Amino acid sequence: MAISVIGYAAASPTSELAPFRFERRDPRGDDVVIEILYCGVCHSDLHTVRNDWGSAMYPVVPGHEIVGKVTALGKDVTRFKIGDAVGVGCLVDSCRHCVECEHGHEQYCDHMVLTYSSIDPKDGSVTQGGYSNQIVVSDRFVLNIPKGIDMKGAAPLLCAGITTFSPLRHWLVDDHSKVAIVGLGGLGHMGIKLAKAMGAEVTLFTRSPGKEEDAKRLGADLVVLSADAAQMEAVTGKFDLIIDTVPYDHDLNPYIPTLSVNGTLVLVGYLGPLGTALNTAPLVLKRKAVGGSLIGGLPETQEMLDFCGEHGITADVEVIAMADINKAYERLLKSDVKYRFVIDMATLSG
Amino acid sequence: MAISVIGYAAASPTSELAPFRFERRDPRGDDVVIEILYCGVCHSDLHTVRNDWGSAMYPVVPGHEIVGKVTALGKDVTRFKIGDAVGVGCLVDSCRHCVECEHGHEQYCDHMVLTYSSIDPKDGSVTQGGYSNQIVVSDRFVLNIPKGIDMKGAAPLLCAGITTFSPLRHWLVDDHSKVAIVGLGGLGHMGIKLAKAMGAEVTLFTRSPGKEEDAKRLGADLVVLSADAAQMEAVTGKFDLIIDTVPYDHDLNPYIPTLSVNGTLVLVGYLGPLGTALNTAPLVLKRKAVGGSLIGGLPETQEMLDFCGEHGITADVEVIAMADINKAYERLLKSDVKYRFVIDMATLSG
Repeated sequence: MAISVIGYAAASPTSELAPFRFERRDPRGDDVVIEILYCGVCHSDLHTVRNDWGSAMYPVVPGHEIVGKVTALGKDVTRFKIGDAVGVGCLVDSCRHCVECEHGHEQYCDHMVLTYSSIDPKDGSVTQGGYSNQIVVSDRFVLNIPKGIDMKGAAPLLCAGITTFSPLRHWLVDDHSKVAIVGLGGLGHMGIKLAKAMGAEVTLFTRSPGKEEDAKRLGADLVVLSADAAQMEAVTGKFDLIIDTVPYDHDLNPYIPTLSVNGTLVLVGYLGPLGTALNTAPLVLKRKAVGGSLIGGLPETQEMLDFCGEHGITADVEVIAMADINKAYERLLKSDVKYRFVIDMATLSG
Repeated sequence: MAISVIGYAAASPTSELAPFRFERRDPRGDDVVIEILYCGVCHSDLHTVRNDWGSAMYPVVPGHEIVGKVTALGKDVTRFKIGDAVGVGCLVDSCRHCVECEHGHEQYCDHMVLTYSSIDPKDGSVTQGGYSNQIVVSDRFVLNIPKGIDMKGAAPLLCAGITTFSPLRHWLVDDHSKVAIVGLGGLGHMGIKLAKAMGAEVTLFTRSPGKEEDAKRLGADLVVLSADAAQMEAVTGKFDLIIDTVPYDHDLNPYIPTLSVNGTLVLVGYLGPLGTALNTAPLVLKRKAVGGSLIGGLPETQEMLDFCGEHGITADVEVIAMADINKAYERLLKSDVKYRFVIDMATLSG
């Protein structure tokens, strides 16, 4: 009595993704059954498939930028009805009773359940993600997609959108703020759009000279080439908040002088030890900080989606067929996408 | 027409401190002339004398934890009268018109003038500190010492006190807070007293097993040996704020897991590159931060002194004669002081 699903899975760290049949649970009382229409392709998908973080459980069906339509509901669900446009992000469950869960910060719960390659404590199964035609998720972890929003462009909001929205909100960005975004990829392009819509003056830090026009089209007021000492010098002490989306180890020291007094550099892309010694002197001398931020909680994710609905914000996407995912991964490794691949699940034949 | 002063100065990075006669300016309209009664001995004094930071200007008269009595006033000074008990901390001037100065955060002004080994932009002279019998300071940079407070114990409040008070206030410590202090020296012992008086639950991190009794007498609720893995594990996720007073390079990574979600580790003692790679993963996974804080502005320093007056807080001091300063420096290097040397200027014969 389970739901038969077709998806794409990796069988091992060195396997390509390939068609994979598996089962989803029959809906519990609080579950929502979703027909997946689109799923964004996040760098974390690739990290997990290749087991870069050592936490993958094979076969793994990646995907945590999921949008679709409700096709069935558990008996206790009142927030949704059949046919609703809904989304699922990086989380599908959490302990629900710790202080973080009580405040709607499920992303900081010690027992959060990730959308894929995580153990569901309720039945011991391994979660499988959105590169598939259906998913079953408890209603607390299902989000409303605002009416009128383009579904393809909405999918990346569930990870890239909330990952940049959450620190912008937490560090109180408004129309007095000067915000810089490091890196123009899936996260970076969302950071620019969201910070701009909040009224901030927005700067992009990039290593690539060719990105100025695109960054300005996305909403950046200024583009600074991080390798150009004069350009870096010109923004000394400027930024209240820097959101660093770079997904690999890099030297943070050059950005610190561009923070204002009380400014914070927030890492959202890279998890690991810094290969270059962090100099603490400028942190002390001007009360600066280096911190991090992880996706967002469910209430904040809904707030972000509603904000995007109001402001007409979606991701810039390139739609691909499911069968092209392995080629897309190769391009992702070369940053050859503007700015997010989204899989059209209509191309996944059952 | 200048004021003749006697102090103790170092003539070079390798010289001992020795008696030194010099002149202070005749009071300008906004100046306060102060007879120095006591001056605290800060680790920064020793760093400057030995030119550890490369910024010393010889001969250098150190000392920036100064308390004394007003003996003369410039014609425009209305905030003080002859005989008032006053203090001077690490700053004696700033630009006075930047956004930081306008908000009373003179310690973050790009043009702040330090109490010693700094150039006074008004006359090009080199500032000389509190190891001397008189000082002349613009009234904005002179503080009221609350009535009834012990003058010897008040001197260290001007640096050790404000350096720990400012981050406690900035990070909104109150009776719901769990605060940890790293290191039990001049700064650390003030951090314990101040955090406790603000109502926080206070923990001391120390490497030395012998400090528990003293830390508890000062106000600590808990003492954690940082080398004891089980003790460290027991405080996982506990602290909203860690104030790290250690004045040399050390590994910050062991403290990060003891921060709560949204917690911040604030460096106040060490300025320089970290010799051990900072791991950013726990910063991202639980929205933690590593930052710094520098002394405090003038309004906040007055607030701290008034707070200490209300709560009966002074530093634990060992009073020394001026002539014993070189021996005191040797003991300071061995952390052999509970918890601050204070020079009795009555021992400085003219």
